[in-house]
Amino acid sequence: MAPQDSDHGRTVAAHGSRIDAYVDRYAARATGMVASEVRALFAVASRPEVVSLAGGMPYVTALPLDVVGELVADLVARRGPVALQYGSGQGDPHLREQICDVMRLEGIEGHADDVVVTVGSQQALDLITRIFIDPGDVILAEGPSYVGALGTFSAYQAKVVHIAMDDEGIIPESLAQTVYALQTAGSRIKFLYTIPTFQNPAGVTLNAARRAQVLDICQRAGVLIVEDNPYGLLGFDGEPMRALRADNPDGVVYLGSFSKTLAPGFRVGWALAPHAIRDKLVLAMESAVLSHSAFTQLAVGEYLATQPWREQIKTFRELYRERRDTMLSSLESLMPAECSWTRPSGGFFVWATLPEGLDSKALLPRAVAERVAFVPGTGFFADGSGARNMRLSYCYPEPERIREGVRRLAGVVEQELQLRDTFGAGAFPDHIGVDTPGPDLA
Amino acid sequence: MAPQDSDHGRTVAAHGSRIDAYVDRYAARATGMVASEVRALFAVASRPEVVSLAGGMPYVTALPLDVVGELVADLVARRGPVALQYGSGQGDPHLREQICDVMRLEGIEGHADDVVVTVGSQQALDLITRIFIDPGDVILAEGPSYVGALGTFSAYQAKVVHIAMDDEGIIPESLAQTVYALQTAGSRIKFLYTIPTFQNPAGVTLNAARRAQVLDICQRAGVLIVEDNPYGLLGFDGEPMRALRADNPDGVVYLGSFSKTLAPGFRVGWALAPHAIRDKLVLAMESAVLSHSAFTQLAVGEYLATQPWREQIKTFRELYRERRDTMLSSLESLMPAECSWTRPSGGFFVWATLPEGLDSKALLPRAVAERVAFVPGTGFFADGSGARNMRLSYCYPEPERIREGVRRLAGVVEQELQLRDTFGAGAFPDHIGVDTPGPDLA
Repeated sequence: MAPQDSDHGRTVAAHGSRIDAYVDRYAARATGMVASEVRALFAVASRPEVVSLAGGMPYVTALPLDVVGELVADLVARRGPVALQYGSGQGDPHLREQICDVMRLEGIEGHADDVVVTVGSQQALDLITRIFIDPGDVILAEGPSYVGALGTFSAYQAKVVHIAMDDEGIIPESLAQTVYALQTAGSRIKFLYTIPTFQNPAGVTLNAARRAQVLDICQRAGVLIVEDNPYGLLGFDGEPMRALRADNPDGVVYLGSFSKTLAPGFRVGWALAPHAIRDKLVLAMESAVLSHSAFTQLAVGEYLATQPWREQIKTFRELYRERRDTMLSSLESLMPAECSWTRPSGGFFVWATLPEGLDSKALLPRAVAERVAFVPGTGFFADGSGARNMRLSYCYPEPERIREGVRRLAGVVEQELQLRDTFGAGAFPDHIGVDTPGPDLA
Repeated sequence: MAPQDSDHGRTVAAHGSRIDAYVDRYAARATGMVASEVRALFAVASRPEVVSLAGGMPYVTALPLDVVGELVADLVARRGPVALQYGSGQGDPHLREQICDVMRLEGIEGHADDVVVTVGSQQALDLITRIFIDPGDVILAEGPSYVGALGTFSAYQAKVVHIAMDDEGIIPESLAQTVYALQTAGSRIKFLYTIPTFQNPAGVTLNAARRAQVLDICQRAGVLIVEDNPYGLLGFDGEPMRALRADNPDGVVYLGSFSKTLAPGFRVGWALAPHAIRDKLVLAMESAVLSHSAFTQLAVGEYLATQPWREQIKTFRELYRERRDTMLSSLESLMPAECSWTRPSGGFFVWATLPEGLDSKALLPRAVAERVAFVPGTGFFADGSGARNMRLSYCYPEPERIREGVRRLAGVVEQELQLRDTFGAGAFPDHIGVDTPGPDLA
């Protein structure tokens, strides 16, 4: 048995504090930086026998790897001294032109001079938060919203206020009321963060009529919009949606990414911003990393210049559509009747709601034991909501694995329902704050 | 003539404010984010007829480009699905092992689990500042210090206090006195930021005896050391210096980089940190960019695994030694007698001091007109010092260009001296704050 005398107690305390000798020296913003309690589970979930419906990883195996290999070798041979050198803080000028071509598919007439190339669009989120947010400032965001954005907002000590959404995206009345109430109360709303198209995690899309309303409400109230659009070109039906940015160049910062239309391994994203904000973004970018990799920027540029990238996006679209179909039909045929879920018309994710009395985080360990993983809903809210929700992604597993994953998940939910009906709803732990996602869960 | 009535005045004001509609909405930290006044000059200085002694760009043309090209093509062919996918927030595990091998050359016994791979060591600087600095906290730094670090510290609203240095690096007595005075006054010193070896910009190296003293002073006072060491393996004489981190694993965060020993275009740097700090760094990393490019990390890993990288570093060392020799002999034979400068035994930079009454920033436009560029000294201080200093880099231009650049510079200084002796010292503008460097000036 351990001795109980006070000297030993002190020794233990001293040892305990040595676990982190710097515990009382961190910045206030770092106090919220704690590893998510579900991380350990996801480490288990990455084992091959587990069907992961948790990750947001694109299926890069669908890329023509031989072509990409030749392209990067050719890049070094022809432009090595540039590709291997420091680049500009704003990003490669030619790539910025090409990015404008990509955005034109969504109705955006942007200028290369207003584009900043970033280390994935995650960095664009970080930089825009850095230049706008003082501790306590308000950011509006859909509820649920992207877990990686909530983590960044939390790291800058923003207060996130959620806007209600339904199957057609943000509910404009909810936005208008929230803005009015906050501004009346003297809150400093810095921006609305929205993923209007094939939202992560909800899988829903803001319809055209509501886009006009959201733009109008924000313009009248003087609220900047940060439009995050990594999935916009991955729609399963018809033409791409018109971006919010297309109809208000002065009031919208647009964030884009090649992570889903090409490959995340290059980490090339961007922000298109009103000119004055762009100035600040470039300075923040240089302060953060000096410049992005010239190599990966030029590789993306060569890919766009020499390869049929629109055709490749079409390949991705068809691949993800098949997986979406498999997931929806599997859910329909296998999940207990009390469950519901969204029906995405693009992107990577389905947002499911469990029957009353069930808690998705409590369910996760059991699901992992049954060799299926998902992301519990609470991570996608800053206010503890989402206990009955889960994000199910269909982007990475092959269709037959998706069906098997849903079958396993349905079995776990079924068991939980039997327990609930026998013993009543359990007491579930409260959510303990925003989880920083692992990169593969973004 | 413009009308002077008040209505028009209001219109003008409204238009004026439209230049930046968001001017009153930025975070407090963003108010200091303004472009350096010397940027426009450096744009001119990048023209081929100008000899730039300003940049800190390594001479990547000395790399075997054909080998690098084959290596990246092979990487995509063999490991494409991993190289093009999201990676872990902490960085590729095998690369982290290899980084430990590199650090061992400087006496460091680190563990791969305590390494975080970052987007250049600049990002390591940003993240360490992010997790430690609340506005007003004190960071100690050599005077002069790396301009990119000062910019980052400023972006987090730190107060930088400089420690005096001489040709042997930080003066321990100055460090001890400053720490004592600040702690007595109740200041929160968060860390000492130091580049002990081949310092940027001063070109000097902390000697072995002082290393022990600096470690001792910081350990007694409970001051964390952030050791930034991008040039450590680029010494011109003998073996690499023993890193500070080698003698105090718990009290030093070590920052390293492949930008100077391989190529900056991959943007691969790292931090080696005590375990608890490493935990925070990983979370901050994920919040900032999710993960670094798997592609560039694996490319660096393949390079280290398959190429004679120690031999390549030797090639770089010999190349830079020749340029250092050229610069020193040119300064000796060409500069006016009243000038002085440091004599680096490694790295990229000479720190020159102009005669009394001369101001390096005022001199820069004239120098650029004479087709030579340097970085004025004030950017390397947070307190307005350095008006008589300039950083001269010898890393990038060929030796004959270095000699020609120094010749032009000496002519400009000579002319200024004649003006001073004829008319007396001019009234020079005060420095207006820390300049964020362009990436090529880092």
